[in-house]
Amino acid sequence: MSRHYIATLLTDFGTSEGYVAAMKGAILSVCSRAQLVDISHDVPAHDILRGAMVLVQAAPCFPAGTLHVVVVDPGVGTERKILAARFGSHTFLFPDNGVISFVSDTMPLESMVSVRDPRYVTPGAVSATFHGRDVFAPVAGHILNGLEIEKLGPKPDSYKTLDLPSPLQRDGGVFGKVIHVDRFGNLISNISQGDITAFSALSSGVCVTCAGKAVGPILATYAMVEPGRPLALINSMGLLEVGVNHGRACDVLAAGSGTEIAIVESPTSVR
Amino acid sequence: MSRHYIATLLTDFGTSEGYVAAMKGAILSVCSRAQLVDISHDVPAHDILRGAMVLVQAAPCFPAGTLHVVVVDPGVGTERKILAARFGSHTFLFPDNGVISFVSDTMPLESMVSVRDPRYVTPGAVSATFHGRDVFAPVAGHILNGLEIEKLGPKPDSYKTLDLPSPLQRDGGVFGKVIHVDRFGNLISNISQGDITAFSALSSGVCVTCAGKAVGPILATYAMVEPGRPLALINSMGLLEVGVNHGRACDVLAAGSGTEIAIVESPTSVR
Amino acid sequence: MSRHYIATLLTDFGTSEGYVAAMKGAILSVCSRAQLVDISHDVPAHDILRGAMVLVQAAPCFPAGTLHVVVVDPGVGTERKILAARFGSHTFLFPDNGVISFVSDTMPLESMVSVRDPRYVTPGAVSATFHGRDVFAPVAGHILNGLEIEKLGPKPDSYKTLDLPSPLQRDGGVFGKVIHVDRFGNLISNISQGDITAFSALSSGVCVTCAGKAVGPILATYAMVEPGRPLALINSMGLLEVGVNHGRACDVLAAGSGTEIAIVESPTSVR
Repeated sequence: MSRHYIATLLTDFGTSEGYVAAMKGAILSVCSRAQLVDISHDVPAHDILRGAMVLVQAAPCFPAGTLHVVVVDPGVGTERKILAARFGSHTFLFPDNGVISFVSDTMPLESMVSVRDPRYVTPGAVSATFHGRDVFAPVAGHILNGLEIEKLGPKPDSYKTLDLPSPLQRDGGVFGKVIHVDRFGNLISNISQGDITAFSALSSGVCVTCAGKAVGPILATYAMVEPGRPLALINSMGLLEVGVNHGRACDVLAAGSGTEIAIVESPTSVR
Repeated sequence: MSRHYIATLLTDFGTSEGYVAAMKGAILSVCSRAQLVDISHDVPAHDILRGAMVLVQAAPCFPAGTLHVVVVDPGVGTERKILAARFGSHTFLFPDNGVISFVSDTMPLESMVSVRDPRYVTPGAVSATFHGRDVFAPVAGHILNGLEIEKLGPKPDSYKTLDLPSPLQRDGGVFGKVIHVDRFGNLISNISQGDITAFSALSSGVCVTCAGKAVGPILATYAMVEPGRPLALINSMGLLEVGVNHGRACDVLAAGSGTEIAIVESPTSVR
Repeated sequence: MSRHYIATLLTDFGTSEGYVAAMKGAILSVCSRAQLVDISHDVPAHDILRGAMVLVQAAPCFPAGTLHVVVVDPGVGTERKILAARFGSHTFLFPDNGVISFVSDTMPLESMVSVRDPRYVTPGAVSATFHGRDVFAPVAGHILNGLEIEKLGPKPDSYKTLDLPSPLQRDGGVFGKVIHVDRFGNLISNISQGDITAFSALSSGVCVTCAGKAVGPILATYAMVEPGRPLALINSMGLLEVGVNHGRACDVLAAGSGTEIAIVESPTSVR
């Protein structure tokens, strides 16, 4: 593949202000060939966990060499570090608050630096409140132009990751919870394919429950149940999800963020 | 015009998740030169009629050679076909559910195939729930790179169109209804320029009514009535619309989706 | 910097219709190399003041040579002029309704014309209701292709600016008001850096008040107060803003659009 200049943007700025465009303008002022792709700007304000989930849904799908600029940054104006890192064949620029957590679970960390070099920050006074435009954007433009991230500063002593709610393994089951309700009303849990594989190896048949009610086995696709009926499946992020064919699982099951989702041994199975 | 790589995207994925960006990343992974343009991602979930209306508002305005990728797809995971077609000088990639209906009314169908060739689908297991990323996107990338759609599969036996609500012609009038209330509160009806021409030929003067109340003749522009007053006009899609100058017709006329809009003979006209 | 084809778009069309994409398609039909960047399409319908604020947040950040297409246009269909102008090194295309006001405060006007030349308008009947697609878009495409704006029509006799609400200087203070509450709940006032400098020169210490309650001095950054506490600062647009560290000032201070924000002499200061 020939050289490209693709950068994605993920922020909690919303789209009704001019903030996202100000960042884009500042990137294009350094690298006018940038191909800017929005991941989302609708992350709830300061919601690092949600930002991390949206980032990992999208970032791994981009071509090698893509730069991902992530500005979900409740610590703006504090001494929190700004980090640049290569995970796999992708480069990320992000505040040190854990928003990179899921990415670091799925793509190998190759290199990381703490951005310090004042040459790559907008000349003159840096706004204390808009690092997206005044720090992240020009640095992103220089990275797109070919600057090695190693030139931006030293290795950090450490970097933050989120304390994610892990599912519990007890009483012959894996007990997790809903961590996100998507646009379609689907209930996305914190139970991963790996958790399921580990548990299934010990069981002859499993049943998913949601809020204590049986949903059924893990199926391949929505259309395997009648319209209006709930089902469990592994979603495109590799997480256990409870949905309803042609319906909204959150309404049908009266469930939401925090509701228990579990995998237990199927009551009808015989070892 | 020189070669371009323009592709539009129309989905019901919303913009608060990473789904749209995942699709874009998957297209760019095949064709990094793609110029991706959003039509909308705010089509209500699974609303094929609404998707079809938004598609025909925008698609014909793009240059010859544009690819339009439409993923409003309540049948994902079922055996519904994925179709690729040329209408006029544009190429469309869409699920076989009628979402192409208005386009097929206004641009001539040149060629259509059912996408089957496994070479153009993401290698490895295809997610049963995210065909946008795993099927539509890579196929779109290959079409942008120059692949003839005829290489993607055989002609389909048939393809679906929507059963659109047609206006009725009776009792000296054309009786339609509001099929969409737009952002400005304008009431868009299912009565087309053609319906109006046919009826007007028989009448010496026509009056538009909304919810049984007289709105007046069909005017050229909003500014032909006083601010706050309703009027009827033919909108930029060629459909009869009732609006209010500097106001919201849906509020002023207490009307919404389904409200009757009609054209009747003007009470003051004399044959 | 090499030649670029960057154009920004700012409208009140929303993103759930196909209107924005229709405009983009019409621009790309004239100039397929256009790099289109959204500023926002979520300006409230017909809200010229809000459009002007969003425009000036973003436009100055773009590289020299950028074209900004602004369609917040309640006068569409009337005889209002369409203007093309160069402010500084940027080109703007906009209806003559004052939406350019803040830009003309901050970037020098170099040249302005009233767009009249019928050659640069879509051939055939121009829709009376959708000038964005039928007039602004093709003109934008030709400007991107290199057309000098002086070719588009004659100098206008005049152009409109907004009557902005200015802060009052009286009783030893500057009294302004909240003109916008942003996504993060921050209260943005109409008091500029210049107003503050003029007043501060006369005072030994200043205190910002919101709805009559003392907020404190003007600080450099959110993190200078405890989480949950209010503070005043000069924001990235150069306007006085009242925010709350890790909170929503509009809720904490029960304030909104129109609430008084003032700078008074600090009660604790001694001349």
